Amino acid sequence: MSTSTEAPRSGSSATIDLNADLGEGLGNWSMGDDLALLDIVTSANVACGFHAGDPSIMRSVCQAAADRGVAIGAHVAYRDLHGFGRRFIDMEPDVLRDEVLYQIGALETFAQRAGTTVAYCKPHGALYNTIAKHPQQAAAVAEALGEFRPGLPVLGLPGSVWLRAAAEAGLSPVGEAFADRAYTPDGSLVSRREQGSVLHEPDLISERCVAMAKGEPIEDAEGGELVLDARSICVHGDTPGAVGIARSVREALTSSGVTVQPFATPFGS
Amino acid sequence: MSTSTEAPRSGSSATIDLNADLGEGLGNWSMGDDLALLDIVTSANVACGFHAGDPSIMRSVCQAAADRGVAIGAHVAYRDLHGFGRRFIDMEPDVLRDEVLYQIGALETFAQRAGTTVAYCKPHGALYNTIAKHPQQAAAVAEALGEFRPGLPVLGLPGSVWLRAAAEAGLSPVGEAFADRAYTPDGSLVSRREQGSVLHEPDLISERCVAMAKGEPIEDAEGGELVLDARSICVHGDTPGAVGIARSVREALTSSGVTVQPFATPFGS
Amino acid sequence: MSTSTEAPRSGSSATIDLNADLGEGLGNWSMGDDLALLDIVTSANVACGFHAGDPSIMRSVCQAAADRGVAIGAHVAYRDLHGFGRRFIDMEPDVLRDEVLYQIGALETFAQRAGTTVAYCKPHGALYNTIAKHPQQAAAVAEALGEFRPGLPVLGLPGSVWLRAAAEAGLSPVGEAFADRAYTPDGSLVSRREQGSVLHEPDLISERCVAMAKGEPIEDAEGGELVLDARSICVHGDTPGAVGIARSVREALTSSGVTVQPFATPFGS
Amino acid sequence: MSTSTEAPRSGSSATIDLNADLGEGLGNWSMGDDLALLDIVTSANVACGFHAGDPSIMRSVCQAAADRGVAIGAHVAYRDLHGFGRRFIDMEPDVLRDEVLYQIGALETFAQRAGTTVAYCKPHGALYNTIAKHPQQAAAVAEALGEFRPGLPVLGLPGSVWLRAAAEAGLSPVGEAFADRAYTPDGSLVSRREQGSVLHEPDLISERCVAMAKGEPIEDAEGGELVLDARSICVHGDTPGAVGIARSVREALTSSGVTVQPFATPFGS
Repeated sequence: MSTSTEAPRSGSSATIDLNADLGEGLGNWSMGDDLALLDIVTSANVACGFHAGDPSIMRSVCQAAADRGVAIGAHVAYRDLHGFGRRFIDMEPDVLRDEVLYQIGALETFAQRAGTTVAYCKPHGALYNTIAKHPQQAAAVAEALGEFRPGLPVLGLPGSVWLRAAAEAGLSPVGEAFADRAYTPDGSLVSRREQGSVLHEPDLISERCVAMAKGEPIEDAEGGELVLDARSICVHGDTPGAVGIARSVREALTSSGVTVQPFATPFGS
Repeated sequence: MSTSTEAPRSGSSATIDLNADLGEGLGNWSMGDDLALLDIVTSANVACGFHAGDPSIMRSVCQAAADRGVAIGAHVAYRDLHGFGRRFIDMEPDVLRDEVLYQIGALETFAQRAGTTVAYCKPHGALYNTIAKHPQQAAAVAEALGEFRPGLPVLGLPGSVWLRAAAEAGLSPVGEAFADRAYTPDGSLVSRREQGSVLHEPDLISERCVAMAKGEPIEDAEGGELVLDARSICVHGDTPGAVGIARSVREALTSSGVTVQPFATPFGS
Repeated sequence: MSTSTEAPRSGSSATIDLNADLGEGLGNWSMGDDLALLDIVTSANVACGFHAGDPSIMRSVCQAAADRGVAIGAHVAYRDLHGFGRRFIDMEPDVLRDEVLYQIGALETFAQRAGTTVAYCKPHGALYNTIAKHPQQAAAVAEALGEFRPGLPVLGLPGSVWLRAAAEAGLSPVGEAFADRAYTPDGSLVSRREQGSVLHEPDLISERCVAMAKGEPIEDAEGGELVLDARSICVHGDTPGAVGIARSVREALTSSGVTVQPFATPFGS
Repeated sequence: MSTSTEAPRSGSSATIDLNADLGEGLGNWSMGDDLALLDIVTSANVACGFHAGDPSIMRSVCQAAADRGVAIGAHVAYRDLHGFGRRFIDMEPDVLRDEVLYQIGALETFAQRAGTTVAYCKPHGALYNTIAKHPQQAAAVAEALGEFRPGLPVLGLPGSVWLRAAAEAGLSPVGEAFADRAYTPDGSLVSRREQGSVLHEPDLISERCVAMAKGEPIEDAEGGELVLDARSICVHGDTPGAVGIARSVREALTSSGVTVQPFATPFGS
């Protein structure tokens, strides 16, 4: 097995990964500034055509990621272009498993064409949120990824049903944190419906990301200290402002001595 | 390069392949009797989800084909579920190339899960007919397949623009004949709009297939003799009668001493 | 307001409607025997293209229904061809409302071309089951139908959240019974997972339908007596056997003196 | 018949319509600035969900158009979200007819909800270009629109096969001009592949539009004079600059004494 995840970060040589959703246009519609983000992040969650993305976009994003040494991840989703994969669909687990395998297989071909492979998987949107708690769908996604490549690294919420299911299926679970979200004391995300759930101040966001990367505590929503078990931080890029924040985060990490690098490497490397 | 096509048939040891379209249901809709056909043919053109087929069907057909030693081919198509891939779409060549690569990549994953690989490609429906004459689209399909796997065997009409483009792209072109179609003296198919274009008599069809397999002439639509350069014969299975005819063809071939076997082998075998 | 539902059946002049799902093919895929069913039922639930059906099928089914005096109902559904509308989708109510309005508007055009109008609506599959209990989605569907045509008759489970929401939105709620399903003492359907949930014996099914039509009790799953508040009975047609059962039901009703006629009439009639 | 087109413009009281494509987002993807354009144009070509647009967008655009007295037109298209309706599809005429009828029927419901009706139809993209020359597809579209509403006004290229087919089907053909395109001496558009085919200079564009509106000649691509038989001018809005040009055109028309008003009125008005 040559798929692997990076060595643990600690002490003076902290490392962290930055991931973002990319390739989320469709045909004549565009979304975000993929090339700007690819110069900032180290892992690209590439849409596979079910919630967004089309084959030509997949091709160009895979090539641009490979050119920059950015790891390619399969951003698999429910089949739902009209809902952008943000709506729970009560699928049979076997069908979900096959739909995930289809998507990652398609993406793999574009990754290989660009001289690399799919290095990891991060489920998208409603699927991400569902499998954090839904054992049958979590197991279905894990089964698909295990069929695709044993030991594949996968991103998810630390402590989620999903990461446990992934471990049980022989995958390599990796926790991620969100750069701009408030956390409850137990490490959950504060609901977007509550005030203060999303942070907007670039300096504060950057400061928290540096702490996360060094394994130091951040302040939770009730003023306590919280240490997140995260080896990747998710940044956003679908607004011009978001790209600026992502760039600030990257610069703050680098100037703080944190090494920013992919958490997963291509198969065989 | 370990992808290969079989040795030439000749004389006392004639060999031929039988191919058919399979996996053409979608969700709750079924089409044809896949399992019956898989016991007859040696190559399965498996729909990849663009004109028909869904991931669960692709999985089960790949498994059933692998279980029987039937070669798996990518039946790539225009993205057109409502038209079953039977309508020409004036796509940009680059987009077509990427759509073909997406489909064959998805199918490859299901073939690998079943312990084998995609062994060949046969474009479907309107795409098949278009690239027989349309150099830009033919080249686009050939480019995609060359990116997927250099030297991949591909099926098409003998003498078509498509098979020439495939050869130029480094693929392995293989001509096929149709079991139940009348041919003009120059080896083209008689248009379906003309009377007598489709044969229905099982004995006549079987007899012609045996001749095709042995490299002997068949009678063309004007009463002349025609030798087809075909290493595979396409049979149909989307009606109960068609399955019976396919079975008759197989039996006639076998009892005539013709070896019925796949024209292409899985990658690496 | 000229949309109306039929007068109440009672005593010597019992009347009942028979409804079935129709037009559930898609392009090259067929489903059921629409013409056979249209000679049996009095109301046709016509698929609108979201779970099944395409414009050409909608046109031909509307014409065939109109030719026979069969009422046309909008069989609106979640947008889910791959799941045949059988999977719950957690849609925003406003989006669901608009998707329902789109579907019934499209169908109305085909009904008008056939010289009639959409006479009623019966939600399909997972949407039917969801709105039986889900107030927000039920209200969204009701709002759409009220926008389409105030007072529109709608079918649903007697006593469901859906029929209450429909009444509150000014629609005309109509309860329906299922010809071949077992009922619990409280009038719910016995889950398909339990033995005996679906009846297969034609004579028993016909006998129960006659009782339902006359307002007489049927036997519930625990041996008690149950009177269903239903002015329409749903029969199935997606298997050859089902068509035969539907025909038996129709004949039993007629020979028992029950008048079989549509529960709803076209707008303006 | 109460559908009508406006009285002919001439002499001192020249009138012209301005039309633009609107509602071309899909779910999470947006396209252009619909509200800005709706304050400029008098006719809105509203996407119907086949090349772009979704039911919620259709609803909001119809409402916003009705609020401003902007006429609603059905921007019907090939079923091709991935190609944005810009690729010719070789459809059977009967199928095309039914797909057009489905789209305009769906849009009509949203127009009615907003208190108006679909006032006209302008086919989109590849369908627009195809039926300018393709008699079978032109006749199919015309047949659908005649079924929807006899006499419906339709936009198209002056002198096109499409406008002739529309007239033969009893529709009301209306020629349109393009604000920013160069014309050959015979009134055809200069191909986009040729230099100078698209005009970018706002003053020049405005000046030409005023001439078109007054029935005066514009300069063709070879320096001659050309009078276009157009009662509507198409402006674009999918870039910020385009909205500015559209606004300039509107202001130039108004300040030149040209009345800018819809060429078609809602059914029944």
